[in-house]
Amino acid sequence: MKLTNVKPADGKLGIMVVGCGAVATTFMTGVLMARKGLAKPVGSMTQYDKIRVGKGNDKKYLHYSDIVPLAKLNDIVFGTWDIYPQNAYQSAIYAEVLKEKDINPVREELEKIVPMKAAFDHNYAKRLDGDNVKDCKNRWEMMEGIRKDIRDFKAKNNCSRIVVIWAASTEIYVPEYEPIHGTLASLEKAMKDDDREHIAPSMCYAYAALSEEAPFIMGAPNTTVDIPAMWELAEKTKMPIAGKDFKTGQTLVKSGFAPIIGTRCLGLNGWFSTNILGNRDGLVLDEPANFRTKEVSKLSTLETILKSDDQPDLYGNVYHKVRINYYPPRNDNKEGWDNIDIFGWMGYPMQIKINFLCRDSILAAPLLLDLTLLSDLAARAGKFGIQRFLSFFLKSPMHDYTKGEEAVNNLFEQYTILKNAIREMGGYEADQEVD
Amino acid sequence: MKLTNVKPADGKLGIMVVGCGAVATTFMTGVLMARKGLAKPVGSMTQYDKIRVGKGNDKKYLHYSDIVPLAKLNDIVFGTWDIYPQNAYQSAIYAEVLKEKDINPVREELEKIVPMKAAFDHNYAKRLDGDNVKDCKNRWEMMEGIRKDIRDFKAKNNCSRIVVIWAASTEIYVPEYEPIHGTLASLEKAMKDDDREHIAPSMCYAYAALSEEAPFIMGAPNTTVDIPAMWELAEKTKMPIAGKDFKTGQTLVKSGFAPIIGTRCLGLNGWFSTNILGNRDGLVLDEPANFRTKEVSKLSTLETILKSDDQPDLYGNVYHKVRINYYPPRNDNKEGWDNIDIFGWMGYPMQIKINFLCRDSILAAPLLLDLTLLSDLAARAGKFGIQRFLSFFLKSPMHDYTKGEEAVNNLFEQYTILKNAIREMGGYEADQEVD
Amino acid sequence: MKLTNVKPADGKLGIMVVGCGAVATTFMTGVLMARKGLAKPVGSMTQYDKIRVGKGNDKKYLHYSDIVPLAKLNDIVFGTWDIYPQNAYQSAIYAEVLKEKDINPVREELEKIVPMKAAFDHNYAKRLDGDNVKDCKNRWEMMEGIRKDIRDFKAKNNCSRIVVIWAASTEIYVPEYEPIHGTLASLEKAMKDDDREHIAPSMCYAYAALSEEAPFIMGAPNTTVDIPAMWELAEKTKMPIAGKDFKTGQTLVKSGFAPIIGTRCLGLNGWFSTNILGNRDGLVLDEPANFRTKEVSKLSTLETILKSDDQPDLYGNVYHKVRINYYPPRNDNKEGWDNIDIFGWMGYPMQIKINFLCRDSILAAPLLLDLTLLSDLAARAGKFGIQRFLSFFLKSPMHDYTKGEEAVNNLFEQYTILKNAIREMGGYEADQEVD
Amino acid sequence: MKLTNVKPADGKLGIMVVGCGAVATTFMTGVLMARKGLAKPVGSMTQYDKIRVGKGNDKKYLHYSDIVPLAKLNDIVFGTWDIYPQNAYQSAIYAEVLKEKDINPVREELEKIVPMKAAFDHNYAKRLDGDNVKDCKNRWEMMEGIRKDIRDFKAKNNCSRIVVIWAASTEIYVPEYEPIHGTLASLEKAMKDDDREHIAPSMCYAYAALSEEAPFIMGAPNTTVDIPAMWELAEKTKMPIAGKDFKTGQTLVKSGFAPIIGTRCLGLNGWFSTNILGNRDGLVLDEPANFRTKEVSKLSTLETILKSDDQPDLYGNVYHKVRINYYPPRNDNKEGWDNIDIFGWMGYPMQIKINFLCRDSILAAPLLLDLTLLSDLAARAGKFGIQRFLSFFLKSPMHDYTKGEEAVNNLFEQYTILKNAIREMGGYEADQEVD
Repeated sequence: MKLTNVKPADGKLGIMVVGCGAVATTFMTGVLMARKGLAKPVGSMTQYDKIRVGKGNDKKYLHYSDIVPLAKLNDIVFGTWDIYPQNAYQSAIYAEVLKEKDINPVREELEKIVPMKAAFDHNYAKRLDGDNVKDCKNRWEMMEGIRKDIRDFKAKNNCSRIVVIWAASTEIYVPEYEPIHGTLASLEKAMKDDDREHIAPSMCYAYAALSEEAPFIMGAPNTTVDIPAMWELAEKTKMPIAGKDFKTGQTLVKSGFAPIIGTRCLGLNGWFSTNILGNRDGLVLDEPANFRTKEVSKLSTLETILKSDDQPDLYGNVYHKVRINYYPPRNDNKEGWDNIDIFGWMGYPMQIKINFLCRDSILAAPLLLDLTLLSDLAARAGKFGIQRFLSFFLKSPMHDYTKGEEAVNNLFEQYTILKNAIREMGGYEADQEVD
Repeated sequence: MKLTNVKPADGKLGIMVVGCGAVATTFMTGVLMARKGLAKPVGSMTQYDKIRVGKGNDKKYLHYSDIVPLAKLNDIVFGTWDIYPQNAYQSAIYAEVLKEKDINPVREELEKIVPMKAAFDHNYAKRLDGDNVKDCKNRWEMMEGIRKDIRDFKAKNNCSRIVVIWAASTEIYVPEYEPIHGTLASLEKAMKDDDREHIAPSMCYAYAALSEEAPFIMGAPNTTVDIPAMWELAEKTKMPIAGKDFKTGQTLVKSGFAPIIGTRCLGLNGWFSTNILGNRDGLVLDEPANFRTKEVSKLSTLETILKSDDQPDLYGNVYHKVRINYYPPRNDNKEGWDNIDIFGWMGYPMQIKINFLCRDSILAAPLLLDLTLLSDLAARAGKFGIQRFLSFFLKSPMHDYTKGEEAVNNLFEQYTILKNAIREMGGYEADQEVD
Repeated sequence: MKLTNVKPADGKLGIMVVGCGAVATTFMTGVLMARKGLAKPVGSMTQYDKIRVGKGNDKKYLHYSDIVPLAKLNDIVFGTWDIYPQNAYQSAIYAEVLKEKDINPVREELEKIVPMKAAFDHNYAKRLDGDNVKDCKNRWEMMEGIRKDIRDFKAKNNCSRIVVIWAASTEIYVPEYEPIHGTLASLEKAMKDDDREHIAPSMCYAYAALSEEAPFIMGAPNTTVDIPAMWELAEKTKMPIAGKDFKTGQTLVKSGFAPIIGTRCLGLNGWFSTNILGNRDGLVLDEPANFRTKEVSKLSTLETILKSDDQPDLYGNVYHKVRINYYPPRNDNKEGWDNIDIFGWMGYPMQIKINFLCRDSILAAPLLLDLTLLSDLAARAGKFGIQRFLSFFLKSPMHDYTKGEEAVNNLFEQYTILKNAIREMGGYEADQEVD
Repeated sequence: MKLTNVKPADGKLGIMVVGCGAVATTFMTGVLMARKGLAKPVGSMTQYDKIRVGKGNDKKYLHYSDIVPLAKLNDIVFGTWDIYPQNAYQSAIYAEVLKEKDINPVREELEKIVPMKAAFDHNYAKRLDGDNVKDCKNRWEMMEGIRKDIRDFKAKNNCSRIVVIWAASTEIYVPEYEPIHGTLASLEKAMKDDDREHIAPSMCYAYAALSEEAPFIMGAPNTTVDIPAMWELAEKTKMPIAGKDFKTGQTLVKSGFAPIIGTRCLGLNGWFSTNILGNRDGLVLDEPANFRTKEVSKLSTLETILKSDDQPDLYGNVYHKVRINYYPPRNDNKEGWDNIDIFGWMGYPMQIKINFLCRDSILAAPLLLDLTLLSDLAARAGKFGIQRFLSFFLKSPMHDYTKGEEAVNNLFEQYTILKNAIREMGGYEADQEVD
């Protein structure tokens, strides 16, 4: 590894996950199993990907950990909050994502991961009910409780660094243009005034994390860190933030497939995406107010990849529709069905149908690993605020719209940005960014 | 446009198409209609794509024709050979690819495109039979006949340049490692000796084209220009060659979809691809000897994109199978069905199914336009021999295996190579090639 | 043909269609073309089906018209009402269901079919707007206007009999249990009182038809003739009624596929059905109040075929969901996607996915022909009220729930009932009805 | 139960299965588990189906066992032959069809089911190799060895009756019109002469079973009992025979779906069926000579359901193609993909695609249970020779072609025949058979 300005990854890294459900426990189990050599962390860029650094004769292909100082799997300690009190082992068994034989070898370690009381507001997730909930007078106190949890966890586990990642449910839609979201001062005032309509519980987690000098990552489509107030806090605390919404099934495919169409200059008339899923996520999204949050997140993908301004003949009239359907027979096995109406030479229509029988948590787990390790890296590299290089992992990537930045949704452009960031942090020259 | 060393595209460009079937007539009709503003040449990179040139503040996005001197649609003249004597209008109607209302406005021009007698050998396409065939004593005479056709056509139509492109059927498989294919001298001897087993009729077309200083493009999976003897001839005549097999339906999708899997470090257990198609191409491929030619061409795609050497955990054990089925009810509307067995975190399996209801000729037509215009450009730029930058358009792209070159099948890597070639011919700096 | 008590089909049969859109014009065009021998009425039972009559040595297989006296295609005269004034030719061209070459040979006849002013209430179909609308003070007057239209049409065209069939849009949902729907007297009073909330325009058509001694058929999911008041009227006028909702794409498949599962004693966990369609029907159904009408009609299918009471182990816990999505790129080409979660031996799960790329009007047209011809037959046979034997053609077949009758949705049971009715009207013995 | 002439099902029933692979062990495990109340025999008609008996007021719906005397699950004893010596427990674990938790509760019983040495000829299944094979000089001796096995098993287990069922691999294709297959005498002579080309090992099993007064059922597509010599033997021994090929995935769907098309008088242009499967069955069928046997069995289905003679307009020009592809990533999870090209009103085309993700052994297991119990019933009812009423369970049902009988492939007609046979054996009146 070259000499860089990135601080080394010494000591323990505490990964604190909000929500100890299917996604969180699949992630934890996999890391613990991989640590013992009993499973492979497939899908993780930090564990598998090799990228080029150098040019011409100096060109070589290296794993990320040979370019930048990443935390090791062995140095990770897990903590969690949840509205249900079951420990990570019980929760993993209940989720039915992994077979028992893939959980049992790390049962003891999982049993020790017991959820702290969650900061929760039933109005933000009407279909959920749980008792393992913090009792607090207002949002400010809610946030203070989380800060204390983080401090206690860090001390008790002797961690040198903490990352907080949200892997809980989608909250109802909170528009991100409210005045109180505009500045840190107004946000803090609203928390103290207990403005429950505009301050989602997730915002308390984010505020607490950043205040405790921990990066915060939003894995659901909640607008938690999409607001200027949080950017101000991140700048003040010099901490990275990333979001939003883990890019797993259908959007992963869409962000990779749309570039195929665009690269070949084929036209697009319409794209219809529907999903069936039966896990708790699906149950929550069956509620229109929660689906709205998701829909906003999912719809933006296409228009930034196939741009009607650039190619009006090809993308000037695209009908894009996204639907999610709660369908219990499938449990965690989400199924996506995409119907893509393209056209070619002389406008003649053709159809592509993609049927993705995926597993939500299996696709999400490596994203948690990569996002936490890379956010920790970014913090040590002195990168704070919005982490554009993590767009690759996210369905609706953050961008500073106040500066006219556009989201990058094209999977391959996101990959280029990711690689360049790794190169630069490793002291290598970056390539041309996106073209 | 910057000043470059590429000769200008003055005068008429004669595009001579071997085979006047569905693909050729869809191509010709579209160009003639587009010329009148009655149709859009969707899918054509030369007509639609915009790429970045320059860096930093000099960065701009330009159409190819604003970077390099491309022949204009108005300067194109069409010629053709076929074993059936029907003119291009009759053949277009018979093919039933385009609606009559999209053909009739250029009926007169199409009727004037009458096939010259084809160089044909029934043993190379047992399921075809036609009378409009050259009478010739041996392969050398066959080739001489084609040369005369080219000269006559060029003179009669007052063309300044000619490109020859193969859009006829797949011939039976001719292994490309025969000794007589090794040098130009041995090839010429075999032609004169009338070695019908090793000299496919397509080789006579290629030899004739290059000798008449016309680039030659192989649109079927025939190994015609995959042999060192042809490379020697291309070098001698300073002419470009390109091949092989137009990248249309299923392979287009595969070469774009496999990178999605690879980029995200997901694993692959198997990929099963089947096709149903009912046109003459399907009929020919129902013959095992002809299918073999196609299968060799189609199977290579995956292994160069998802490399088992680089990622043995992920791609060390992939079962890849490709099937083509003649199924007359569909006519030209080819349908592909791909089943992709991937795995993720801890090895858990998932499935992706892609059903592509495509139109073979609609996808191929813009490739003919781009390949002929870009080959003509390459010739004027002094680029001869194998044109690696045209890999983007081809199912089984040429590469000089005697020099240890590997085929590039990843659609997005092919695109980078294409863009860099355009940039360089336009006098701009290229990017890092492939990573 | 045996001697039966059915009156002969002498003279002209006037078929008056409510709504002159895609379905109606496809139906009319096909009949006119078939009459000239220029098209085949594929999908029509009255024109194609052959059924067994007699037993043992007397067994023979006959077309319906060789068993019972059916009106001939040549004796049909078409009339129509619509809120748009375009004639049937213009409307057929606009619909883009049929190619122009399949319409033009009967252009003159279609041009003569000009819509009469429609009885319309914008509140029942908010997404539609048209000017060719009757001006009327109340529902009673609306109905009287329709009666006059029927009388005038019958006289002018010298018809001996009339059938009225609804092929217009789905109205908003009208629950069929309102007190005013309970008796003919209360219905008539409500019409005179202009109770617009409970009297849909479609009820005025039905009332008018029956009063003019014409059978009435409801082709949309409207509850028009599902109410006791209409049954009373049908009894009084001795006229047949039939409904509701033409059984075309997805439900046709469901009513045929569910019996496969049931016959083999396989279990069912869930059935998810989604549809995309882009025609006016789709636009109307995008309005939740109108979709509700459709959903009620579509959901009932499964539970009467796979009965949880009979086989609790197999069908005791079925999750059934139906979705319809307006998706303009498809126009009239409706596409259904069914995901069926079955289970077998020891409860092991399996999946069946059915993707139906259908054409709504092409599937509906023969139903209009069969329903009108067979309703006319039933009237001549003295069968009045609910026509259970027409269930075969309908998505949500009528049944007299006040007598505890159950709907029959199993396609093959419906077919048995249809055949038995034909047999009996033809003077033959019926089989055991349903088992 | 009414009094009938069927002998009671007293004593133990020995079910001897040829082949102790995935299908056989799934069957055995399920029966043993069901016996303990630990699993449900879903998919089994004898355990679940209820049918009508009686008419009018006497009509009632009964399970088969309430109509006829069926052997009870508790009275079953299993025996088996296989070329591999592993016991049924080991084989069930190896097959990976059932989860271990669904096998372990009956582990002890399964371990006691140890394969006897198989009668095997490598030339009939080139891709298989196993050592647990009988050593025998000729086919006659092979058959004698099997007879001895049956006698020994029956005595040792104190069985009152035996049924032999083939659940082993598909052998290479043996045309059923050879002279030596014509009479029992010529068959016996050929066995003694060791005519290995015309006497498949499966014929030795069938001959042995019938000679020992055990019904014989052919579950693979082998033509074993399709020959007059076997019919003669069955008549001589008064034993039932049934075959061939368990109707599991794609053909089950086809035999149920084609009637939907036919019943609605829709037209058919083509039907393309492809399969991927990765179990031993798939491996064997990858050999062209073995696939041929299967193809003949699978192709016949359509033409007897949608008859071109009866409806030339609709079924006069159908292109039917069936493909099977060995694809190891799937193991026992067979996947079928059907593409059905139908046409409707005025000949307009539509498409239906069916994707069946099935489990071969899960669908086959209940067929083994039903076929053995019902064959045993038939034997006690004095029904011998071809058992047409078992067509319901078979892909290519037996029929006496020498008497001009046609195969019945329509699932619902097969069901009617099955029900009538149960009714008649139970002393009730049958319905009209098929219409």
